[in-house]
Amino acid sequence: MEILFKSIGVVHTPFTSPEGMPIQPAGAAGVKGTVEVNVDLVEGLSDLEGFSHIILIYHFHRSQGFNLTVTPFLDTKAHGVFATRAPRRPNPIGLSVVKLGAVKGNILEIEDADLLDGTPLFDIKPYIPAFDSYITEKCGWMKNRENDLQNFRADDRFK
Amino acid sequence: MEILFKSIGVVHTPFTSPEGMPIQPAGAAGVKGTVEVNVDLVEGLSDLEGFSHIILIYHFHRSQGFNLTVTPFLDTKAHGVFATRAPRRPNPIGLSVVKLGAVKGNILEIEDADLLDGTPLFDIKPYIPAFDSYITEKCGWMKNRENDLQNFRADDRFK
Repeated sequence: MEILFKSIGVVHTPFTSPEGMPIQPAGAAGVKGTVEVNVDLVEGLSDLEGFSHIILIYHFHRSQGFNLTVTPFLDTKAHGVFATRAPRRPNPIGLSVVKLGAVKGNILEIEDADLLDGTPLFDIKPYIPAFDSYITEKCGWMKNRENDLQNFRADDRFK
Repeated sequence: MEILFKSIGVVHTPFTSPEGMPIQPAGAAGVKGTVEVNVDLVEGLSDLEGFSHIILIYHFHRSQGFNLTVTPFLDTKAHGVFATRAPRRPNPIGLSVVKLGAVKGNILEIEDADLLDGTPLFDIKPYIPAFDSYITEKCGWMKNRENDLQNFRADDRFK
């Protein structure tokens, strides 16, 4: 089963190369960017400004191909790709929760932008804690690593 | 910009029709389902069982077309589609956080499954609170509605 998605806009950030990128929005605290939504879709942004956080679903457009087992940035051991957030995946779909600032026409001002400049965007959803925020009992191989993001940067392994 | 995604598997749940569906995983508490991952991708599931929650990214396969302004199940007023979680969207991509039980070969046992039976799956990611769990300052039109999900069910408006 195959389906064709079209980008609804493009994300602009200071990051022009995958190497040296912050890891996850939590590793990109304060980094500002913008989302430029296609002008014909502006009506769909109505009332979005009421939310302080939004979910961006986008294309890892600089990743090509995938391996089923990968060694992620935050570990020295290999794991199944679906147990990681690595960008080289069977479907290279990225997911980031970012802070939303002002909405000016088709431009969204965002913060904590851990995306590459020029990233094609597929969807925007409001972040709603009752739907999206969970306390987990188990965090697998990520345990004790996930709060240390400021000390990690991406390298070229997922180009 | 267009990109073709292929399903990596299919989700099985008790829900065979959009009408009467629970709203969000929080409205489907305890509902059990399975994710059947394509057998050629099983290696990619290694170490996933260590996580108690996973993110499913999937196709709203029973939705066709979209409107830029919609009245969502949880409100009587219309909002921009990107300020809602309605399934009829420019790219009909769904996102659910579900509880993960046992992983048996290519089958994942899941709970809180707010997905339609037969839903084509695009991606599985581990849910990591440091990446995915946020306290929000503003929750827009959803304020005071998001904790009342047990009293709402889907109807046919997004068929």
